[in-house]
Amino acid sequence: MHDKTWSGRFNEPVSELVKQYTASIGFDRRLAEWDIQGSLAHAQMLKETGVLDEGDLADIRRGMAEILEEIRSGKIEWSSDLEDVHMNIERRLTDKIGDAGKRLHTGRSRNDQVATDIRLWLRDQITVIQSLIQSLQTALLDLAEQNAETVMPGFTHLQVAQPVSFGHHMLAYVEMLGRDNERMADCRCRVNRMPLGAAALAGTTYPIQREITAELLGFEQICQNSLDAVSDRDFAIEFTAAASLVMVHLSRLSEELILWMSPRFGFIDIADRFCTGSSIMPQKKNPDVPELVRGKSGRVIGHLIGLITLMKSQPLAYNKDNQEDKEPLFDTADTLIDTLRIYADMMRGVTVKPDNMRAAVMQGFATATDLADYLVKKGMPFRDAHEVVAQAVRHADQAGVDLSELPLEVLQGFSDLIADDVYGVLTPEGSLNARNHLGGTAPEQVRFQVKRWREMLA
Amino acid sequence: MHDKTWSGRFNEPVSELVKQYTASIGFDRRLAEWDIQGSLAHAQMLKETGVLDEGDLADIRRGMAEILEEIRSGKIEWSSDLEDVHMNIERRLTDKIGDAGKRLHTGRSRNDQVATDIRLWLRDQITVIQSLIQSLQTALLDLAEQNAETVMPGFTHLQVAQPVSFGHHMLAYVEMLGRDNERMADCRCRVNRMPLGAAALAGTTYPIQREITAELLGFEQICQNSLDAVSDRDFAIEFTAAASLVMVHLSRLSEELILWMSPRFGFIDIADRFCTGSSIMPQKKNPDVPELVRGKSGRVIGHLIGLITLMKSQPLAYNKDNQEDKEPLFDTADTLIDTLRIYADMMRGVTVKPDNMRAAVMQGFATATDLADYLVKKGMPFRDAHEVVAQAVRHADQAGVDLSELPLEVLQGFSDLIADDVYGVLTPEGSLNARNHLGGTAPEQVRFQVKRWREMLA
Amino acid sequence: MHDKTWSGRFNEPVSELVKQYTASIGFDRRLAEWDIQGSLAHAQMLKETGVLDEGDLADIRRGMAEILEEIRSGKIEWSSDLEDVHMNIERRLTDKIGDAGKRLHTGRSRNDQVATDIRLWLRDQITVIQSLIQSLQTALLDLAEQNAETVMPGFTHLQVAQPVSFGHHMLAYVEMLGRDNERMADCRCRVNRMPLGAAALAGTTYPIQREITAELLGFEQICQNSLDAVSDRDFAIEFTAAASLVMVHLSRLSEELILWMSPRFGFIDIADRFCTGSSIMPQKKNPDVPELVRGKSGRVIGHLIGLITLMKSQPLAYNKDNQEDKEPLFDTADTLIDTLRIYADMMRGVTVKPDNMRAAVMQGFATATDLADYLVKKGMPFRDAHEVVAQAVRHADQAGVDLSELPLEVLQGFSDLIADDVYGVLTPEGSLNARNHLGGTAPEQVRFQVKRWREMLA
Amino acid sequence: MHDKTWSGRFNEPVSELVKQYTASIGFDRRLAEWDIQGSLAHAQMLKETGVLDEGDLADIRRGMAEILEEIRSGKIEWSSDLEDVHMNIERRLTDKIGDAGKRLHTGRSRNDQVATDIRLWLRDQITVIQSLIQSLQTALLDLAEQNAETVMPGFTHLQVAQPVSFGHHMLAYVEMLGRDNERMADCRCRVNRMPLGAAALAGTTYPIQREITAELLGFEQICQNSLDAVSDRDFAIEFTAAASLVMVHLSRLSEELILWMSPRFGFIDIADRFCTGSSIMPQKKNPDVPELVRGKSGRVIGHLIGLITLMKSQPLAYNKDNQEDKEPLFDTADTLIDTLRIYADMMRGVTVKPDNMRAAVMQGFATATDLADYLVKKGMPFRDAHEVVAQAVRHADQAGVDLSELPLEVLQGFSDLIADDVYGVLTPEGSLNARNHLGGTAPEQVRFQVKRWREMLA
Repeated sequence: MHDKTWSGRFNEPVSELVKQYTASIGFDRRLAEWDIQGSLAHAQMLKETGVLDEGDLADIRRGMAEILEEIRSGKIEWSSDLEDVHMNIERRLTDKIGDAGKRLHTGRSRNDQVATDIRLWLRDQITVIQSLIQSLQTALLDLAEQNAETVMPGFTHLQVAQPVSFGHHMLAYVEMLGRDNERMADCRCRVNRMPLGAAALAGTTYPIQREITAELLGFEQICQNSLDAVSDRDFAIEFTAAASLVMVHLSRLSEELILWMSPRFGFIDIADRFCTGSSIMPQKKNPDVPELVRGKSGRVIGHLIGLITLMKSQPLAYNKDNQEDKEPLFDTADTLIDTLRIYADMMRGVTVKPDNMRAAVMQGFATATDLADYLVKKGMPFRDAHEVVAQAVRHADQAGVDLSELPLEVLQGFSDLIADDVYGVLTPEGSLNARNHLGGTAPEQVRFQVKRWREMLA
Repeated sequence: MHDKTWSGRFNEPVSELVKQYTASIGFDRRLAEWDIQGSLAHAQMLKETGVLDEGDLADIRRGMAEILEEIRSGKIEWSSDLEDVHMNIERRLTDKIGDAGKRLHTGRSRNDQVATDIRLWLRDQITVIQSLIQSLQTALLDLAEQNAETVMPGFTHLQVAQPVSFGHHMLAYVEMLGRDNERMADCRCRVNRMPLGAAALAGTTYPIQREITAELLGFEQICQNSLDAVSDRDFAIEFTAAASLVMVHLSRLSEELILWMSPRFGFIDIADRFCTGSSIMPQKKNPDVPELVRGKSGRVIGHLIGLITLMKSQPLAYNKDNQEDKEPLFDTADTLIDTLRIYADMMRGVTVKPDNMRAAVMQGFATATDLADYLVKKGMPFRDAHEVVAQAVRHADQAGVDLSELPLEVLQGFSDLIADDVYGVLTPEGSLNARNHLGGTAPEQVRFQVKRWREMLA
Repeated sequence: MHDKTWSGRFNEPVSELVKQYTASIGFDRRLAEWDIQGSLAHAQMLKETGVLDEGDLADIRRGMAEILEEIRSGKIEWSSDLEDVHMNIERRLTDKIGDAGKRLHTGRSRNDQVATDIRLWLRDQITVIQSLIQSLQTALLDLAEQNAETVMPGFTHLQVAQPVSFGHHMLAYVEMLGRDNERMADCRCRVNRMPLGAAALAGTTYPIQREITAELLGFEQICQNSLDAVSDRDFAIEFTAAASLVMVHLSRLSEELILWMSPRFGFIDIADRFCTGSSIMPQKKNPDVPELVRGKSGRVIGHLIGLITLMKSQPLAYNKDNQEDKEPLFDTADTLIDTLRIYADMMRGVTVKPDNMRAAVMQGFATATDLADYLVKKGMPFRDAHEVVAQAVRHADQAGVDLSELPLEVLQGFSDLIADDVYGVLTPEGSLNARNHLGGTAPEQVRFQVKRWREMLA
Repeated sequence: MHDKTWSGRFNEPVSELVKQYTASIGFDRRLAEWDIQGSLAHAQMLKETGVLDEGDLADIRRGMAEILEEIRSGKIEWSSDLEDVHMNIERRLTDKIGDAGKRLHTGRSRNDQVATDIRLWLRDQITVIQSLIQSLQTALLDLAEQNAETVMPGFTHLQVAQPVSFGHHMLAYVEMLGRDNERMADCRCRVNRMPLGAAALAGTTYPIQREITAELLGFEQICQNSLDAVSDRDFAIEFTAAASLVMVHLSRLSEELILWMSPRFGFIDIADRFCTGSSIMPQKKNPDVPELVRGKSGRVIGHLIGLITLMKSQPLAYNKDNQEDKEPLFDTADTLIDTLRIYADMMRGVTVKPDNMRAAVMQGFATATDLADYLVKKGMPFRDAHEVVAQAVRHADQAGVDLSELPLEVLQGFSDLIADDVYGVLTPEGSLNARNHLGGTAPEQVRFQVKRWREMLA
């Protein structure tokens, strides 16, 4: 802030080094529009409660409209002498309209002002994020619908486990993103509470009416304790935690896309426009986007830890430490928004290669469980059936064939409960269709889930 | 797990070193009661869908009742040859009841079983935590009510800012804990969804009815995708993030208690039973409990990072990595429960020292803002008033007196708007009472908030 | 600690809840042997400086010998009334030998005592870890030597990049572990400094000679500032950071082992004794050990964050927060030791499948760079050669063949610099052998590095 | 990168969204000077090994000199179409000098190029950091020297423990920073190893001589394995861990400065030029710099976690994830450099208030241990003396006086070993001077340590 702001009490001006170290205008100016929103609502409330008169309010509105125009057109000059976005705008306003500008800060402090600005800004970001999550879900639902019957190996421990539908696999991510959106909604409730009116830390001696500002600004609730209002950064941590989970989910999908696009898997291809080559190896086509997303999960998780560490052990109420909340929060929202946007786009550029998927299913005795279940249905206890099939798998493995390729008499050598209807359960398609219950991988269930989600997202 | 479980396919037994490294029975046995709950519901569902008969179910119920008794009386012997709690209980059951025991695992896998167990267990822990948070809030409300009129310095930057009510300060923490409880409730919704029925990863070929098990186990929702059901650990991360925020809040209160009990502050005393001494310094009385709580915040935050790192980039569906989810989750819940319990107890052992608090208020020109507001109300723009008061503070500081101790003519030297009614606004009590709006520090507001919270907690 | 320790100043005993919450005997008793080491050295120094007499020292030695025996035979009873390992041992000593036991604590405090114990303990753990790292390096060197000429695809972005020797790949991990051991050695220097003599925080009034204790205990340096000595936990954080890097390296190798053992890759097999099966899928053989290691990296990283968070913003000197340093530190060392031990064992159980590796090399135009280099050597600028080869790759990709399978006239269609010597550079072996410089993948270089490392480890 | 770079293999250009998401030129351009350093050395080596001729080298040198000039004068235009700093510079070079520019990339890849650039850059940052740490140590040594005899209360648990010299307290931080500098030096060794020559991942087919480039660039060692060379980011993590410890130390000192400047403590004042005021409270003078430093510790710790998470489970060799290493690394170095610089400056603006410190010593029975030691020296076992003094403290506390203010007969009521020489040990100065051994707080020791450090830093 400009020296003049508090020079009456100070013997020397702030050193240049300190000015640079403590100035936030370099990053908090992106709050400018929300700062003006908050100021206009504050001014209107001050007028309604008689602290400002009609003329002051009109001046402030006029001045702020001009400043907003200057900001949008990039004409405003931000000064780090004025430290932050709040003082820059207030000074500009006072330059334009005189005393009314000096009266605007009545009954508030930068402590409640900045807390209000961040919440207004974050609320808008969450709205964007929620919508982008839904776009990505829609892209995944399209893939799921097209691939309800596409058989791929379901893996556990990256070993072939049981056949699953590729559509079913895509739906797993739709579920994860659905929870992410729930968390964003829950978080938004706690973001959307108004600290304005807390002033520096204790409230103010002016006859403010916080209900008026809250309604003007669309806040659902009002922070009920002034000390808490200015020192709370829970909402930033909660948002970053929710964002970290989105990134963890996308890191998992990215890991799979990278794996599936590796030539040994060859399950999918990603359109060229999402890939890059190599400066040295002419043959390369690299899945850069999922790799970067996987890497960027570390970035967001780092911000989460940065913010938690920031708040740990801070005494009440406001401390300058809190200025460090903005950059990680801004970068978290930016990273999440950019990532979700590109991801939805990229998923629409994924080509599925069903033949390679099916070949992989045949490579790992994926229907062994089906054989065990077959025996159980014929009366064998599950644990015994498990052992019988293990023996059969060992035999087939040594012979280098799939279970379905063993002759009936060989299979019967493991259990005389086996009859020739066994081959029906040993195909991937048979296995898939047999898991036809809520949440199961059968194509019918996949289509049901696609429909359910489309209705929820509509 | 006992070699026999999969020996049919294996050429050699698991090495002893691997057995120890991979066994989870050392820590997952605390899930035993919830594992049995889940198994009983699964068995009943299997009977209702015709997979098991009446006799099997009766046998299973009888066997499980005996095992539960053995567990509770500490008579059961856990074997690390049997790897985990699930196989230990199943083997014990089979030893007792024979084939019906072997049939219990029909239509499920350890993958969905363990996910179900953890959710059941965590749901119960959250219930305990929610109740303990409320107890702590009640202890803080008692302190707030008793100290609605106790004046202390409100700090920003640990410099005296404005007078606040000690009760108001306590209420800031009631608010934080209130949000913590909201987060626990939101998290509980996502915990309380049933993975059972997902089997290994793809669902099962048996005609299961997941609605039956869900209702028996009190799950509000059913996981809609089998791959997601077995691989999702969001709920554990979300819980640990919510727990981290509780610990951050308590680390802040702890920091303040430690500060306030330091002799230079002397704002409070903590009852001897919560303090310890020194092996070398006979005079010491140390606030061990808040210090440990502050330290334990690191522990929980570490677990959060451990769990996020665990899940980052994991391909679907289940991987053995996930076994590492349990210890940090268990320790997080234990730490939080122990900490909340001792904290509520300790806050009832806090003695407030109002004289020291008031003396501190007089040491930092706490009513300077009130003087500025006084000038504004007499017509001076806020920014100008701020500057006038800064000059007055500088003068008083050099004279070594409080603003209220400056003679009227001296004050008038700074502004002729000052009259002898100024001394009313310069007392701490005057300052306190003047901030009488929603969320402000006035004693009337403190009492209002205490009442509001008592009703919400009732 | 037993109430009596400081009861003279206290009005009431410590509450049971507090006793449990603050007691460390449950975990710090593992320091017992090192605590006794430290006490014996301290006692001898006190005798040499005349604070204790011969008789006291003899009594202390006799008593401690008995206690050590009780500890090793498991006969000692640890009491949480006595809070920690130090007081338990001191009390037991006093019970045995009377006043000499009470004199042992002269000139020291638990603050410097516990700091000394942890450093002694950690120094020993690092010695074990350094040796285990070398064992694992040796196992990797064996694999490298056996596979100097085994061709596998080198990946970047998980896309086939260029042929590499599997031995060369193993050597990459030998390098990483080599740096890990450097870091352990650097850390050990800073661990091996003696805080004893700092007493509570300021030193002591007794005529202690710290050089004597340092020499007896094998400390290389003496902490030069008493306040720092009791409050420093850098060494624990540095150790945990170094341990985290080891785990990150092993998480990378684990990721690769899991990938390589997946049937689509099929590059290796891991001996059955390191794998486990499934409770439901009879065909499964899962690489549990690398999966768990990958998961346990999160655990150690979590401890690192826990410890850093613990120390952040702590005022000097000792605070009770520091008691929370032990459990994460113990668990970090345990996890690292167990993991290194099992890993060295497991790597000796890895079977390499050269045919599958070579087949994978042929699947991704791995020698495209070699073709570009070929053109450059014939005079074309690298950037132009890169483009020519890109066209050839595109053609081969559409034809479904490798570059080496294109007829000469087709290749010449892309550049007339190509002659029939081109086929020599298009084989994997040719490519491998051509990278014959320090650090390159040529078998000759691999053997050179194996030799270099064997000499360093000898 | 410009589409042309790999378009021969690609069917469509990279999408605009992907270009923005994957471009690194926005942040990696700060590596430009180091990139040119590396290229010049690479070109010279290529010439010496006969790959480039004299003319090429001369062209490259001339072109690079011009580009360097353009960079320094801010005239260069960075293009995000060219993706990163390497391609921007190479393209600019080729525009200037033609074919020789296209030949520069012979025998290297961007993978080893960027790894080399970062190491060269980081090496220079560490040199700056090491020097700044020493400057801060010097500022602290000045304070220590001036205050060797200034008595302040040493705290444990933020309770008064024993008198210490303020100079001694400052020296504790000199020790911490000394260890920080050791870690920086250790880290620098591992940074200063050359990956150049690893090419994409496997080395190159050109007859490179890495010893030549290493010597030209001042690298102490050469990375011995090409796969490791391009994928290793240990050095970045190790640096960030070392930086985190510096920040933790400064967060501790900051916590103390904030506390000491709080009016209840009043131990120090910080010059006005390092403080800021309030927009609402005219009396405020806030210690912004230490608060921000405390907050910024979270930032650096967050980067540490971000980088570790980035590397966890990455398969070899280079993956695009690694591009995310730069921003956290850059910001860590910037934050550390700015913080160290301002801190050294600020410590020179600290005014010590010895009277307030001494008053605080008298407020907490700081010499109780001295009384116990006094009794021990007269023959009482330490544990018994501890108890006797505890009783005396309790009596003095109730009487509201210090131990030194109790009459001799009262003191003798607690033990008849007490004589009138007791008052000598009960003064803060007596206590201070009595701790006169290596590492103790006696002024003589403080002066010894100042001298020792001045010599080491000379």
